[in-house]
Amino acid sequence: MKASQFLISTLKEAPADAEVLSHQLMTRAGMIKKLGAGIYTYMPMGLRVIRKVEAIVREEMNRAGAIECVMPVIQPGELWRESGRFQTMGPELLRVKDRHQRDFVVQPTSEEAVTDIARQDLRSYKQLPKNLYQIQTKFRDERRPRFGLMRGREFIMKDAYSFDRDEAGAKQSYQKMAAAYRAIFDRFGLRYRAVAADSGAIGGDLSEEFQVIAATGEDAIVYSTGSDYAANMEKAESAAPQGPRRAPAQPLTKTPTPGKSTCADVAELLGIPLASTVKSLVLATEALNGAGEVAKVQVWLLLVRGDHDMNEIKVGKVPGLDAGFRFATVPEIMEHFGTKPGYLGPIGLKKPVKIVADREVAVMVDWVCGANEEDFHITGVNWGRDLPEPDAVADIRNVVAGDAAPDGQGQLAIERGIEIGHIFYLGTKYSRAMEATFLDEDGKPKPFEMGCYGIGITRLPAAAIEQNHDERGIIWPDAIAPFTVVICPVGMDRSEAVKTAAEGLYAELRQAGVDVILDDRGERPGAMFADWELIGVPHRVTIGDKGLKDGQVEYQHRRDTAATKVPASEIAALVKGRLAA
Amino acid sequence: MKASQFLISTLKEAPADAEVLSHQLMTRAGMIKKLGAGIYTYMPMGLRVIRKVEAIVREEMNRAGAIECVMPVIQPGELWRESGRFQTMGPELLRVKDRHQRDFVVQPTSEEAVTDIARQDLRSYKQLPKNLYQIQTKFRDERRPRFGLMRGREFIMKDAYSFDRDEAGAKQSYQKMAAAYRAIFDRFGLRYRAVAADSGAIGGDLSEEFQVIAATGEDAIVYSTGSDYAANMEKAESAAPQGPRRAPAQPLTKTPTPGKSTCADVAELLGIPLASTVKSLVLATEALNGAGEVAKVQVWLLLVRGDHDMNEIKVGKVPGLDAGFRFATVPEIMEHFGTKPGYLGPIGLKKPVKIVADREVAVMVDWVCGANEEDFHITGVNWGRDLPEPDAVADIRNVVAGDAAPDGQGQLAIERGIEIGHIFYLGTKYSRAMEATFLDEDGKPKPFEMGCYGIGITRLPAAAIEQNHDERGIIWPDAIAPFTVVICPVGMDRSEAVKTAAEGLYAELRQAGVDVILDDRGERPGAMFADWELIGVPHRVTIGDKGLKDGQVEYQHRRDTAATKVPASEIAALVKGRLAA
Repeated sequence: MKASQFLISTLKEAPADAEVLSHQLMTRAGMIKKLGAGIYTYMPMGLRVIRKVEAIVREEMNRAGAIECVMPVIQPGELWRESGRFQTMGPELLRVKDRHQRDFVVQPTSEEAVTDIARQDLRSYKQLPKNLYQIQTKFRDERRPRFGLMRGREFIMKDAYSFDRDEAGAKQSYQKMAAAYRAIFDRFGLRYRAVAADSGAIGGDLSEEFQVIAATGEDAIVYSTGSDYAANMEKAESAAPQGPRRAPAQPLTKTPTPGKSTCADVAELLGIPLASTVKSLVLATEALNGAGEVAKVQVWLLLVRGDHDMNEIKVGKVPGLDAGFRFATVPEIMEHFGTKPGYLGPIGLKKPVKIVADREVAVMVDWVCGANEEDFHITGVNWGRDLPEPDAVADIRNVVAGDAAPDGQGQLAIERGIEIGHIFYLGTKYSRAMEATFLDEDGKPKPFEMGCYGIGITRLPAAAIEQNHDERGIIWPDAIAPFTVVICPVGMDRSEAVKTAAEGLYAELRQAGVDVILDDRGERPGAMFADWELIGVPHRVTIGDKGLKDGQVEYQHRRDTAATKVPASEIAALVKGRLAA
Repeated sequence: MKASQFLISTLKEAPADAEVLSHQLMTRAGMIKKLGAGIYTYMPMGLRVIRKVEAIVREEMNRAGAIECVMPVIQPGELWRESGRFQTMGPELLRVKDRHQRDFVVQPTSEEAVTDIARQDLRSYKQLPKNLYQIQTKFRDERRPRFGLMRGREFIMKDAYSFDRDEAGAKQSYQKMAAAYRAIFDRFGLRYRAVAADSGAIGGDLSEEFQVIAATGEDAIVYSTGSDYAANMEKAESAAPQGPRRAPAQPLTKTPTPGKSTCADVAELLGIPLASTVKSLVLATEALNGAGEVAKVQVWLLLVRGDHDMNEIKVGKVPGLDAGFRFATVPEIMEHFGTKPGYLGPIGLKKPVKIVADREVAVMVDWVCGANEEDFHITGVNWGRDLPEPDAVADIRNVVAGDAAPDGQGQLAIERGIEIGHIFYLGTKYSRAMEATFLDEDGKPKPFEMGCYGIGITRLPAAAIEQNHDERGIIWPDAIAPFTVVICPVGMDRSEAVKTAAEGLYAELRQAGVDVILDDRGERPGAMFADWELIGVPHRVTIGDKGLKDGQVEYQHRRDTAATKVPASEIAALVKGRLAA
């Protein structure tokens, strides 16, 4: 490609609404252009990146035996009523009425459409397993679209759906996709982690997120320094504390703590470690009567160490809390504890509550908690001696850096990530709802065991930028750069020698299949270099009259701080060598 | 590809709603699957065809210097208000409200979005010309979607938009696209014609349709047997009649024609050629006053030969009729002619009307028309002698087969076509409405001169099928076949020799870059052949145990009536030779 034949449109300033770096840089580099809130045109420079992402994904999906199709953007509401999602999904599902006032949706994913294909076309167990995927435009009507391609409303997603005879088959299909995803993300040239994720109502361990590591990532991801263990924060398990509880050493003492309503304040006031305090969180569950009215409210007290945070996903798995819970209201708290939040604790309750202690809290001795009296805490609290053992002990906290890894290998560390892929075992959730069955070997109809597997095609370039940039702009990995090599001739219009050398190198690299762009726009060197550093092409060759007189040109990788002089006769081989590496 | 790894889903019967052959065959061959009215999933087999169409289009568009981008499917209504299309387009424009009740449209084309890019990014004449294109999903909410991909609601279109400094540049860009379109359609391997089309309000000759020839096509297209002249029926010009009018030979005679209100009936009754009769059509134009009310109605009588049809597009270019016209009402006709339609003519009017004669009518002598009296016609009518010369003489009829070509070279012939491409010079229609300007060399802002260029990507396979099929199914041209070659092993599960030969040929053809599928499903020969004939793979190799014993396999092109025996050692070379041809 020659730059004069392409559309290069860089900006000095990022738009005011671009809050994150990838949004700023993609806009400034002319890769995307906003058409409306959360709706972007993929400009020629950006589309080249997206197409390279698509090509890698497509190649590996095909290699893994998945079969490509394309399902409609606009889908009948009728179909979405069958799965129940038309009714249950919130306003992020964009609903449309056609000229005949019939309901349609703009697809955010395609479980319904693909299950409709399966129930028509996959009639026998002999046709299974099958995995159908598409790379297609999606829409999610975010309340507050922002961050450019990171959280847009219209986006491109690769979504795959596997159909199997039974759970064992579905798990094999899932593992095949897990391997394919690793192959895909390895090829992108990005640092990433596959982390276990919570699989919600389906249960089991079969859900993983693929996270691109970036300091600006919105997800906290947890990994072990001593093993392959990795999970997202929702899912990451804290290791069970070692050994039995020590014997109590302190007497139970009520202590004035005026105005100190947080564990941190209390620890500071008393001169004790934060880890000696216990945080009280009050939840409520409701039992309904036959008419769907609340018949009984059960109040729960959850205890986590003062330096820990409660993990709602884990709480939702505690027996009794696993059918849904809410935070207790202030009147409910007053009724049971006799005081307001900030001074709560498990001793001296007005009315009984169910007590759930985090595993770490269950082994504490001589701890500190609220006295259920404003401006007072209790120190030297001990299980068994001062209060009964808790009703339940469970892992209900977020892990923290330095925790022992749950597999016993090394310690947990935490970093930030951007989710760009998610694989998920679905079970028969959709196939049962939509009556999608096949005839099994025994001649009986059975619902398909399904899995679904997504990759955010247009989100990936944004994540790549969050991970790879500097103050001058983007730094693309070779695999997904809009162009791999840029040739910058200085004074091409004045010097025949420069023109000949530039055109010659351009032709030679193209011949070798290198995705090279020749900047023949006639820009001045400063502006030309600034453009390509902003755009982030990884390899640059600069050809000038002065260097050529000595038979030399310059090579600079986008991460290099300075250019290297290279004999003109060796530059093509050098560039090709760099790309092969 | 091995068939067992792919999704092959053929049907014996076409769905009841499939009216046209391509819809029936694409559904039966498992290429498309209906999700809703006019909304189809592109199934794996169909998607392969679509991707090949896209690849050819993309390659030639790039070669012609057009630059690919992707504009959003969902576009802000605000932008569409700027061009006026939000207000003026009918219900075929699918309008959506987002969660904040803001207006959006689902794009049917992208003039607004691309003009918005141009006005931001093309700032100087130095950046021109530029041609931006996309291959993207479109939606048109047809009242009665039907014919499968031929007239669907959701479809994929390649739409390109050129931006130039001036009209001369725009016309060059147009010609470049015209050449690219010929290159594209040549590669598809289909019989097609590029025909001149009417360019509506923009004027000039710069509009061409690309029509795939098919007996079932909905458009009539006109071409010369003696030259390159070709146009659609709306546009095709009739040659001016030769020589002066002959002298009158018959007296003017009123003749009873009871109940004969059509030219055909009158010609039959009188025993004269239909070409001696003249058809009367009554139109009206309205002049409005300052308040937008109808101030004056002008009635027009249009005369075409009895064997000809009026062409409304041509009528709309007659001075006085070019600002819009309607058919006259029965009261208007009674008022001016004194009788009802069926017996109208230009002689003996109650009130004056403007008379427009087709060029053929203007040279007629001794002709027959209505007497403006029920059940009577007049014979022996002659211009000048019996009535004044017409107010205007113009080409206002559809051409018919056998007409002289307007360029004087040969005769016109008519065939049916399916429009799959359209190129159009737009002028400054959108750039003026949206204030899209660039700075010209003189430092002044000027509106872009634009052109637009479409190809119906998903319509093309349907058109290809309408042109190429037989009673057994589809016959794909090599360039866009889902697979180019199918290997059908007979008894692969029973015979090692068959398995080895089939796998060997499969590997060899794949190695040579041939898009080959090996049918390893274990279907019986009859079902297997029927599937591939329905799907329409152009080249088939059958490998059976019996033939192999004599060292032979069978080759059959989809158009061949029988298979040819070929030595097994030569089959790969033969197939490769057929593909290269």
